[in-house]
Amino acid sequence: MKSYREELWFTTPSRRDYVNVTSQVEKCVAKSGIKEGLCLVNAMHITASVYINDAESGLLEDYDRWLETLAPHEPTSQYRHNRTGEDNGDAHLKRQIMGREVVVAVTDGQLDLGPWEQIFYGEFDGRRRKRVLVKIIGE
Amino acid sequence: MKSYREELWFTTPSRRDYVNVTSQVEKCVAKSGIKEGLCLVNAMHITASVYINDAESGLLEDYDRWLETLAPHEPTSQYRHNRTGEDNGDAHLKRQIMGREVVVAVTDGQLDLGPWEQIFYGEFDGRRRKRVLVKIIGE
Amino acid sequence: MKSYREELWFTTPSRRDYVNVTSQVEKCVAKSGIKEGLCLVNAMHITASVYINDAESGLLEDYDRWLETLAPHEPTSQYRHNRTGEDNGDAHLKRQIMGREVVVAVTDGQLDLGPWEQIFYGEFDGRRRKRVLVKIIGE
Repeated sequence: MKSYREELWFTTPSRRDYVNVTSQVEKCVAKSGIKEGLCLVNAMHITASVYINDAESGLLEDYDRWLETLAPHEPTSQYRHNRTGEDNGDAHLKRQIMGREVVVAVTDGQLDLGPWEQIFYGEFDGRRRKRVLVKIIGE
Repeated sequence: MKSYREELWFTTPSRRDYVNVTSQVEKCVAKSGIKEGLCLVNAMHITASVYINDAESGLLEDYDRWLETLAPHEPTSQYRHNRTGEDNGDAHLKRQIMGREVVVAVTDGQLDLGPWEQIFYGEFDGRRRKRVLVKIIGE
Repeated sequence: MKSYREELWFTTPSRRDYVNVTSQVEKCVAKSGIKEGLCLVNAMHITASVYINDAESGLLEDYDRWLETLAPHEPTSQYRHNRTGEDNGDAHLKRQIMGREVVVAVTDGQLDLGPWEQIFYGEFDGRRRKRVLVKIIGE
């Protein structure tokens, strides 16, 4: 069994952002030399997500608006977590909707994705360096 | 290390549907010959889910009603994604609530599920051929 | 390839509870002897979650209040599932928000977690014995 590990780093310019990381994960798979296996991609921070969906700008706006409806940033005083001095209580909730991680099959040395599946980093408390873990195991 | 791959295809008669796929995934595990490992089951489409919960008809109605509350289909104009000519903006949101994939342990050549765990395909934009990927690795 | 399996059992004193299980999962990794691989941690019950987020008491209150807003326990008659004689319809919905499982990389014989990542058992229908599965594969 082989394994491969790489961290991808991001600093988004705004508090919330949605970054297509598919090609970066594909490069990890190529570097791993693994032909058959599983590829885990997870946010290493608890106010960010890794999820799979469409690379369509309208949908990214829909997600952002919807997440703000389900867990609004303001007023920040509505979250007890923010009594610690943080203002990111909403980000911890949004991340649960969108998920922490994806596991993608590796087949014939490629990410085994459906035609529209794209891997996204969803940032809900950005403007600082944060990272994603890629771990691949297989043969 | 062994690996096994199979696609399961579905065409649901209605826009939204919930299909118990547990026995189909069990057959994949049997065919794989893998005794100890991990089994990934994921929707290959971004308007559908694979999730684990109860095979109880009342609960399936509860899920359907709840998802319509959180991300209603109508009016379709509320989603920017639908400006592309689609009418499935809601389906991309519902799928995030229910999730893309499950990873199930394989132990002694069986899916290692709790007593009520059943694997479901959740369709939110059906009436056309769509597929699920089963990928199993182990020994 | 090696594999390791262990069940963790919980009886929470209240209906809903949030239990930090990180150190118990770390012990499983140590016992497995696996240095590089993947660690699956999943609820074996369909009214409970395993998720990763912050071990901060204010946040746990925020989650609990938020989940009650999205899927209230009362009135129990609002859920068709409860016509079966259950009163846990809400728990099946809350669990979908928080998720069934996490997959964590194992690197150098340790859980490969970010600085604030903690593994939680989220219980939404407690006061009885329920369990979590830990399955680790690798080398």
